[in-house]
Amino acid sequence: MSDVAAQGTAQSNWGRWGPDDERGALNLLSPEIVAKAAASVRTGRTYSLGIPIQADGVPLMDYRGKPMRLTLEDSTDEGSYRDFGCKPGTGAHEDVLIFASHTTSHMDALIHVYEDWEHYNGVPASAMRAMTGATRLGIDKVGGFAARAVLLDMPRQLGGGPWLEPGRPVTAADLESTAAAQGVQIGTGDVVLVRTGYLQMWFERGGDMPFEQPGITQDAGQWLADRDVVAVGSDNAAVEVIPFDDGDFLGVHKVLLVRHGVYMIEFLDLSAPAADECWQGLLTVAPLKVTGATGSPVNPILIG
Amino acid sequence: MSDVAAQGTAQSNWGRWGPDDERGALNLLSPEIVAKAAASVRTGRTYSLGIPIQADGVPLMDYRGKPMRLTLEDSTDEGSYRDFGCKPGTGAHEDVLIFASHTTSHMDALIHVYEDWEHYNGVPASAMRAMTGATRLGIDKVGGFAARAVLLDMPRQLGGGPWLEPGRPVTAADLESTAAAQGVQIGTGDVVLVRTGYLQMWFERGGDMPFEQPGITQDAGQWLADRDVVAVGSDNAAVEVIPFDDGDFLGVHKVLLVRHGVYMIEFLDLSAPAADECWQGLLTVAPLKVTGATGSPVNPILIG
Amino acid sequence: MSDVAAQGTAQSNWGRWGPDDERGALNLLSPEIVAKAAASVRTGRTYSLGIPIQADGVPLMDYRGKPMRLTLEDSTDEGSYRDFGCKPGTGAHEDVLIFASHTTSHMDALIHVYEDWEHYNGVPASAMRAMTGATRLGIDKVGGFAARAVLLDMPRQLGGGPWLEPGRPVTAADLESTAAAQGVQIGTGDVVLVRTGYLQMWFERGGDMPFEQPGITQDAGQWLADRDVVAVGSDNAAVEVIPFDDGDFLGVHKVLLVRHGVYMIEFLDLSAPAADECWQGLLTVAPLKVTGATGSPVNPILIG
Amino acid sequence: MSDVAAQGTAQSNWGRWGPDDERGALNLLSPEIVAKAAASVRTGRTYSLGIPIQADGVPLMDYRGKPMRLTLEDSTDEGSYRDFGCKPGTGAHEDVLIFASHTTSHMDALIHVYEDWEHYNGVPASAMRAMTGATRLGIDKVGGFAARAVLLDMPRQLGGGPWLEPGRPVTAADLESTAAAQGVQIGTGDVVLVRTGYLQMWFERGGDMPFEQPGITQDAGQWLADRDVVAVGSDNAAVEVIPFDDGDFLGVHKVLLVRHGVYMIEFLDLSAPAADECWQGLLTVAPLKVTGATGSPVNPILIG
Repeated sequence: MSDVAAQGTAQSNWGRWGPDDERGALNLLSPEIVAKAAASVRTGRTYSLGIPIQADGVPLMDYRGKPMRLTLEDSTDEGSYRDFGCKPGTGAHEDVLIFASHTTSHMDALIHVYEDWEHYNGVPASAMRAMTGATRLGIDKVGGFAARAVLLDMPRQLGGGPWLEPGRPVTAADLESTAAAQGVQIGTGDVVLVRTGYLQMWFERGGDMPFEQPGITQDAGQWLADRDVVAVGSDNAAVEVIPFDDGDFLGVHKVLLVRHGVYMIEFLDLSAPAADECWQGLLTVAPLKVTGATGSPVNPILIG
Repeated sequence: MSDVAAQGTAQSNWGRWGPDDERGALNLLSPEIVAKAAASVRTGRTYSLGIPIQADGVPLMDYRGKPMRLTLEDSTDEGSYRDFGCKPGTGAHEDVLIFASHTTSHMDALIHVYEDWEHYNGVPASAMRAMTGATRLGIDKVGGFAARAVLLDMPRQLGGGPWLEPGRPVTAADLESTAAAQGVQIGTGDVVLVRTGYLQMWFERGGDMPFEQPGITQDAGQWLADRDVVAVGSDNAAVEVIPFDDGDFLGVHKVLLVRHGVYMIEFLDLSAPAADECWQGLLTVAPLKVTGATGSPVNPILIG
Repeated sequence: MSDVAAQGTAQSNWGRWGPDDERGALNLLSPEIVAKAAASVRTGRTYSLGIPIQADGVPLMDYRGKPMRLTLEDSTDEGSYRDFGCKPGTGAHEDVLIFASHTTSHMDALIHVYEDWEHYNGVPASAMRAMTGATRLGIDKVGGFAARAVLLDMPRQLGGGPWLEPGRPVTAADLESTAAAQGVQIGTGDVVLVRTGYLQMWFERGGDMPFEQPGITQDAGQWLADRDVVAVGSDNAAVEVIPFDDGDFLGVHKVLLVRHGVYMIEFLDLSAPAADECWQGLLTVAPLKVTGATGSPVNPILIG
Repeated sequence: MSDVAAQGTAQSNWGRWGPDDERGALNLLSPEIVAKAAASVRTGRTYSLGIPIQADGVPLMDYRGKPMRLTLEDSTDEGSYRDFGCKPGTGAHEDVLIFASHTTSHMDALIHVYEDWEHYNGVPASAMRAMTGATRLGIDKVGGFAARAVLLDMPRQLGGGPWLEPGRPVTAADLESTAAAQGVQIGTGDVVLVRTGYLQMWFERGGDMPFEQPGITQDAGQWLADRDVVAVGSDNAAVEVIPFDDGDFLGVHKVLLVRHGVYMIEFLDLSAPAADECWQGLLTVAPLKVTGATGSPVNPILIG
C-alpha cells in the first residue's frame, strides 16, 4: 500500500467503494439524489457549457495538436448510391474527426493522473498501456451522469473585474464565502462549477495569455472532496491554479482525481449561466465511451 | 424555390422559424417545455444511451473507417515536467482520438442529408465544402439540448421475439398503437426513441448481420413530424427501415431532416430503459461542438 | 473538348500517350534514358532532398493542419507478447502518422490541379471524389521513378544574395542562362530542380516570411515542357512564383501538370548539392502508393 | 554495459562507429561504394517495390489500424481562391493521410526493437517517449540511402512451388546456395532482398493466410550481418520466419537491428524483378523524415 493510501480515510476515498471500484465519487449518485437534482430545475433554461472544437480561436495546448475535421463524403460523391435507389440530387455529407481526448471542454478519466505511480484506488500507472489504452479507470467506466450543479462565480464575489487575475489562487475560504454570498450550499453528489473568468479573458484577448491562470488550491480541492462532490468543473485549463499550489505539479489533480476519485472538467463556458445568476440546476455530463481513453471532450448541459 | 418547399406547410417546416434559421425543430424547445420535461423525472435512474467507440465489437460501417485511440502521453514521459515542479512518480495519461462524426451512437446535423440539392430551409448542398465543412446547418448550431423523451418498445408491442426482423417496417400505425399500449402520448418538443431490437440482435449475433434492418417508414416519419417532435432516435443504423421505404434512398431522412428540421440519432442502446419499462423521462443530447461538422458521436443521458 | 486541348499539340501533351494515359511525362522514361541517367553518377555522394515532417520548425500551410506522430506501441506494453515467446526486456516501438499528402517535401499527382474543370488528358475534375479519392490520375499511378536530375542554382546566377527575393520571377531566359553558366543541358526525361533559396531564407528567418515567394513563370514552365522534362522540383511552396504570374492562380501548375502531364515537387532542400556544385546526377522519387491520393510526401534521393 | 554488448565485436556492431552513433550499418555506405552500386545498373529498368497503402486488399495488422485517405480539398471548394486570382473552373485536390509508420511496405528505424531494454549501440528503451517519440535512433536519422541490392529468389532455388510454405525457415546455407546459384556475391554495403513468395501467396489467396510465414532464421541474420550488409528486405511481414526461430520473439530483429544496426524493410513486392531475373541493381530507399518516428512506409526504387 502506498503512502497516499496510508494517509487514511479523511484524506482518501481509496477502498471506500470496494477494492475493485473504478468509478470513484460517481458512486455517490443514487437515483434519489439524481431525482432531487432534477427537482432543482426552475426556469428550464438550457445552457450548453462546451466550447467549440476547432483549429483556431479557442484555447489549445500545443502538445495536444490541432483538432481536424476532414471531409469523408460530400456532393462529389453524387451517384455513388444510385444502385440503392438514390435519386439524383439526394446525398449525404459526413466527416472524420481528429482531436485530443483532452481538447477544449473535456472531462478527465480517473486514469488521467497518477501520484507515486498510482491512480485512484491504488491502480498502478502501468494500467495504462500505449496499445490498449486504459485497462482500468478509463473514461468508458464513467458512462455519463446527471447531478445537481452549483455554480460559484468567483469574480463577482472576489471583485476587481470581469476575471480573476492570472495566478490568483481560489481557496477553500473563497469557495465558502462565495457559496454563502450566492445563497447556495454544497453537498453530497453535487458538481461544483468554479467560474474564474479565465475563458472570457482568453476570448477578449484573442488568446494572448500568460502561462499563469487562476484556479483552486489544494485546500480548496480537499474542502470540495470533504463535501463529497462528484466532480469539479472550471473555465480554465486545469481547474487548479497555475503556478501550481505549493509548487506541486498537478497537486489539485492528485487531491481530487487520485486520492478521492472526484472528476475534473476543464474549459467549460460558464459565462451564460453566470450572467443569468443561475447558481444551481441539473447538470448532465456525457463523455464519449471511447474504450480505454483517458478522457473525452464533453459538452455538459445545465438546466437552470 | 424548390419542389420540396412548394409542397407547403403541412409537408415542411421551411420558413417556419425564419428564412435564415439553422436549428429547425430545436426551436420548439422553450424553457417552459424543458422545465416540464424535467418535471417528468420519477425514479432518478440514469441511463447512458451511447454505445462504446472502439475498433471491434460494435456496429461500424466500412466506409467510415475504424475508430482509433492513440496514446499521446504515458509513463514513458516521466520527467518531462520536472522543471514545472513535477515530483517523481507523478504523471498524466492522454490520448488522441480519430473517428467518423457518424461513428457508433451519433446525431445527424441538418447538413447531413440533402434532397433535390437542398437541405432544410432551402440551404443548398454547396453550403458543405471539403475544406471548411458545413458553412451552415453544422452540428455546431445544435449546441446541445434537453427535452422529454418517449421510448417506444416495438418488439414488445409487435411481438414475435426480442427484436423486429431485419427489414420490418415500423409504420405510423405501429407507433400509435405502441404509444397507446404503453400509455404515453407524443407531443410538441418530444424526442421519440424507437427501439427495434436491432442493436441487441447485433450483439447477440456478434455482428453477423444482414444488410436489412427494421426501422420507421416515411409515413411514420411524417406522423412524428406532424406531432412536432424535435428528434427521433433509434437503436439501428439509420432510424429508417432498410430496404428503404418506397425504394427511396434515405427517404425518411428527407422527411425528417430535410423537410422538417427534425434531428435523427442512431445506434442508441435503449435496452436498459426498455427493460425497466421506463417509457418517458428527461433526455439530454450533447453533440460535440465541432465547427463545421455534419454530426457528432453522442452519449445521450436519459433520466427516468 | 475544352479550350485547353484546342490549343494544340505545341501547347499540350493531351492524347500524346493515348486517350487513357494516366502517367503523363513519366512515359518519357525509357530504360535507356534511365540507364544513361545512372551512368551520369560521378562521386557517389548521396543527397536526401526531403525536409523533416514535424509540427514546428518547417514550412507548413495552416489549412493542411499540423503533422502528428502518435505512439502506437511503447515500453508500457511490456509483456503483451509473452505468449508468443517474447522475453522480458524485448519489445517494439511503433507509431501512427497523420499529415497532409502535400505536407513539407511532396510530389503532386496529376489529379492535384484542374483547369476549365479538366485535368491532364481531359480527365474531368469529377474524377476526384470525397469518399474514394482520385479514381484516375492519383499518386498511385506514379509508382516511383528514376531520372537524370539537373540542378539550377538561381541565386548563384542571378546574384544579389543567398536567395532570390520573395516575388522574384524566374523566367525561361533565367533558366537558360543558368544552365549555360553551369555547363548543363536540359533534355528529354530530365527532372529540373530549381533552387531559389526560399527554404534557406525560411530557416534563417525562423519561418517569419512574407506571402510572396520566388519561383518560375508560365513561360519558364512552357520552356521546360518544350524540353520534355518529366518533373520540376523546387525549394519553395509552389514551384511557381507568387504573386502568380499574370495574376493567374496556379498558372504554372496549369502549364505543367494540366497541359503537359509534367510533375511538380515542392519544398525540396537543394542546399547541400548546390554547395557541392553538383549540377547533375541520378534522382529517384518514390511517392507512397496511397490509393486515390492527390500527392505524397517524398524524400527524393539524388546521387551526384 | 549490457550482456549483449559483452558478447563482443563478432556478435555486435555496438561502438564500431562511436558511442554516439545513431545510423548503424548505414555508415558503411561510402560515396565509392554508392558510385560502384550505380555502375551496376545494366538495363535501366525501374522497379517500384512498395505495395499500395489502402484499407483493404493488402496485408495489414489489426493493431496498426486501417490506413485512411481523407479529402482535404475538392471541387466543392470552388471559389475559395477567387480573391487570389483563381479563375472559375481552376482548382486543387488535396487529402490528409493517416496510417501506421509500419504500414504495408515499410522500413524499421533502429529505435523499433530493443533487447534487454536496450537498442542498437546501448541506447536505452526509454529513449522512446510517448509524447516526443524517438529522441535517438529515429527514422529521421536515416535520411535516405542508395546502395547495391542483391535479390535472392528463394522459391526458385528451394523449389516446390511459387512460394515457400508458411513457417519455412530460410537459413544461412539457403541464402548462400541461392546466391551461388544466381551467380551473385554479397558484400559490404549491400542490401539483400530475400523473396519468399509470401506476398504473392497473400494476393492469390485474397489475404486468407495462416499466422505462420516463411522468413530468415537467426543464423541467416548473423550470416548477413557478418557480410556487412546495410539492410535486409523481404516480401513478408517481419523478414524473419514465424513461428520465431528458437521460439524467440523478434529474434532476428534483435540480431540485425539491435546488435548490428542493420536495417529491415518489410512487405516489399519483389515479384517483378524476380520475374525478370534481375538479381542485382541500384536500390534507393527513402523513408519519410518524420521526426521521432520508429519507421516509415517506403517505396524503394530498384534500377536493374
